[in-house]
Amino acid sequence: MVDKRKAVVEDDDDDEELRTGQGAKKQAQAALGFRKKLKSDAVILASVKKFSETAKDVRQETRTLADLNLPHACKEVVDLNTSSVVLEIERSILSIAKSILAGNGFGYSVPARSSVNQLYVPELDRIVLKDKASFRQFANISSVRKTAITTRILQLVHQLCTKQIHVTKRDLFYTDVKLFQEQGQSDTILDDVSCMLGCTRSSLNVVASEKGVVVGRLVFIEDGDRIDCTKMGVGGKAIPPNIDKVQGMESDALFILLVEKDAAFMRLAEDRFYNRFPCVIITAKGQPDVATRLFLKRMKTDLKLPVLGLVDSDPYGLKILSVYMSGSKNMSYDSSNLTTPDIKWLGVRPSDLDKYKIPEQCRLPMTDQDMKTGKDMLEEDFIKKDKNWYKELELMVKTKEKAEIQALSSFGFQYLSEVYLPLKLQERDWI
Amino acid sequence: MVDKRKAVVEDDDDDEELRTGQGAKKQAQAALGFRKKLKSDAVILASVKKFSETAKDVRQETRTLADLNLPHACKEVVDLNTSSVVLEIERSILSIAKSILAGNGFGYSVPARSSVNQLYVPELDRIVLKDKASFRQFANISSVRKTAITTRILQLVHQLCTKQIHVTKRDLFYTDVKLFQEQGQSDTILDDVSCMLGCTRSSLNVVASEKGVVVGRLVFIEDGDRIDCTKMGVGGKAIPPNIDKVQGMESDALFILLVEKDAAFMRLAEDRFYNRFPCVIITAKGQPDVATRLFLKRMKTDLKLPVLGLVDSDPYGLKILSVYMSGSKNMSYDSSNLTTPDIKWLGVRPSDLDKYKIPEQCRLPMTDQDMKTGKDMLEEDFIKKDKNWYKELELMVKTKEKAEIQALSSFGFQYLSEVYLPLKLQERDWI
Repeated sequence: MVDKRKAVVEDDDDDEELRTGQGAKKQAQAALGFRKKLKSDAVILASVKKFSETAKDVRQETRTLADLNLPHACKEVVDLNTSSVVLEIERSILSIAKSILAGNGFGYSVPARSSVNQLYVPELDRIVLKDKASFRQFANISSVRKTAITTRILQLVHQLCTKQIHVTKRDLFYTDVKLFQEQGQSDTILDDVSCMLGCTRSSLNVVASEKGVVVGRLVFIEDGDRIDCTKMGVGGKAIPPNIDKVQGMESDALFILLVEKDAAFMRLAEDRFYNRFPCVIITAKGQPDVATRLFLKRMKTDLKLPVLGLVDSDPYGLKILSVYMSGSKNMSYDSSNLTTPDIKWLGVRPSDLDKYKIPEQCRLPMTDQDMKTGKDMLEEDFIKKDKNWYKELELMVKTKEKAEIQALSSFGFQYLSEVYLPLKLQERDWI
Repeated sequence: MVDKRKAVVEDDDDDEELRTGQGAKKQAQAALGFRKKLKSDAVILASVKKFSETAKDVRQETRTLADLNLPHACKEVVDLNTSSVVLEIERSILSIAKSILAGNGFGYSVPARSSVNQLYVPELDRIVLKDKASFRQFANISSVRKTAITTRILQLVHQLCTKQIHVTKRDLFYTDVKLFQEQGQSDTILDDVSCMLGCTRSSLNVVASEKGVVVGRLVFIEDGDRIDCTKMGVGGKAIPPNIDKVQGMESDALFILLVEKDAAFMRLAEDRFYNRFPCVIITAKGQPDVATRLFLKRMKTDLKLPVLGLVDSDPYGLKILSVYMSGSKNMSYDSSNLTTPDIKWLGVRPSDLDKYKIPEQCRLPMTDQDMKTGKDMLEEDFIKKDKNWYKELELMVKTKEKAEIQALSSFGFQYLSEVYLPLKLQERDWI
């Protein structure tokens, strides 16, 4: 509608940006070309179904630490129900009482969580803790404070589990500010306690605040309420902070679509993408939070569905996938409960930029920080173990180009849901 | 369970923090005292019911700009349905075509949105735009780019409204990166366009990403799905980014509880506070986003319920209330659609700290920045117009103390839902 030629005549400075008529035409042609490649939905669905079933077989061989013959004794925590946690705590306190009565004072054996005690296990594709532990003696000036805080946290957690209520770390801190002084102190010891008891932090009923949302072919029971995620409008259902209130997951989906950002989530939810291609769509709106990671893991385990990841084509998007898949380093003791190892990288992959003819101006140059992160990631086990992933990242670093999921909007607002994703599914184009 | 005296004997440095036994006892007594003050739920409900009905009468007199006899001609935007927006755009383009055919070239008359063109209207208790506008000529080097972008945005919005789909600002930017260059440019012109057409930005089908959640006695239809917020588990329902998909709100609540943070929201949702005291609980998890503000406004208008605000006792908490009530300055042209003027400040108020005996160690000293923000706010019309609010803020600045909602956890994890809020309701303790 803009008369661009006229503008060029009158204002030479701006002609570069305004003479886009030709580019826009090319772009429209490219979009049309991809649209024509699309087969009928029935054909695409058949292709996905096959994949979905293969994924079901592979998943039988999920291995645990115990299955492996590792040179180190390793430690991982498990999900415990509240009565088991209560029992564990009472057992600890009882043994302390005995020790005191025997005239030996008391202390706690606390697993070390520092990086020297961490180990990447390729067979499991995640980070676990080695068995180093330190004894935290009460009758010692250097450890008396920590021992007191540990005991207090045990008492508070006992109370939470008995009452069956959930609180945030911040709430926990405020119950005894005089003792804890700073939230960092109660947080650290809380993690120690979960290692000590051998259970996850969410088993302690201390939860993270939620920010994820889910929509699509999923039904579950949350605290007694039946949630049907196909009937959650366009905003979706907020993922609950306490995963143990979630039960009875059911789904007729063929896959789970894990989306980095909420703009893409919104597009897919509004277009009811899951009605055309049965799936569950989930996003943590950026950096994955614990609640969303637990929810994804639970879906994967209960529903036995493959997970396809849709993230920006930049080192940060890859980092986000790695957190979902291998866990973050400071919670490595909890990695088996938080990680979903076999996520397929659907897109937007560095090779997609040329393959899908993403226009030059929608690609962004990588910053120095991006380049550094990208190069560092090339050294990580997580990337190195998969040739295809490595190649893609190598390409990104070589071309020094990145692109957001939104870059697909340059072909039209609904290009993501109507062309790009269906085509990806049709060609099973993920690695 | 901690033997604190023993610790003190062995480690003198830490005795200050560890000799908390006496303090804890006092705290427990205080909590018990407040608990004893509580009457039966029936009595509390009767008290709230009366308030809820009074609020219904007052609300009849909601005034608009047109009702006032202002010295300035002022401009506000209204919600338009998509077909009206399409019509408005076609009308603009038609008049442009005529102007071009008449040999006059073309341009747009764009309302100024700078602070000199903003006006606080005490009768409405919000900021509006005065009538200053500038003419954006196409045949002029300094404005040709902006005119071209304006035309392109009009075209894109026309497309969105015709297709009845919603996108984010980011999506909009990516449809024509070559022309827009930076997202800031398309964002600014988008706001211009909404002023020009006299409608809200959400009428243009360009939406903000949502982060709010809602739970409690509310039923509504979202894009055809019936959402019952009493059956949303503990995580609640994610507030949709596009308010125009929300219809048919129904509720038997007595009030709306607006909560600053998600930790408090979580506590109230898990305790199903809304079953004991019929209410709707809503939070934007911090800084209010447009979607949550629109949703609150819609609830207030459709359900005619009073709104009670629960925020931290610090200048930031007050700032958050002010954004819900009077709007933010850079969206003043849209203030009537985004603001909910009569929110009552329930807590945590500076005077609550002593009244509810919040322990010293759970109060935090205000930083220099806090003090500055607090003092600046004392000068604002928003605070000055209400004597009681002014007094509270004055007290905060005088005592130089702040406290989070979580500080109430020092009396027990469920103190907020079991004692503090019921007592507030019983005594109708809000201003």
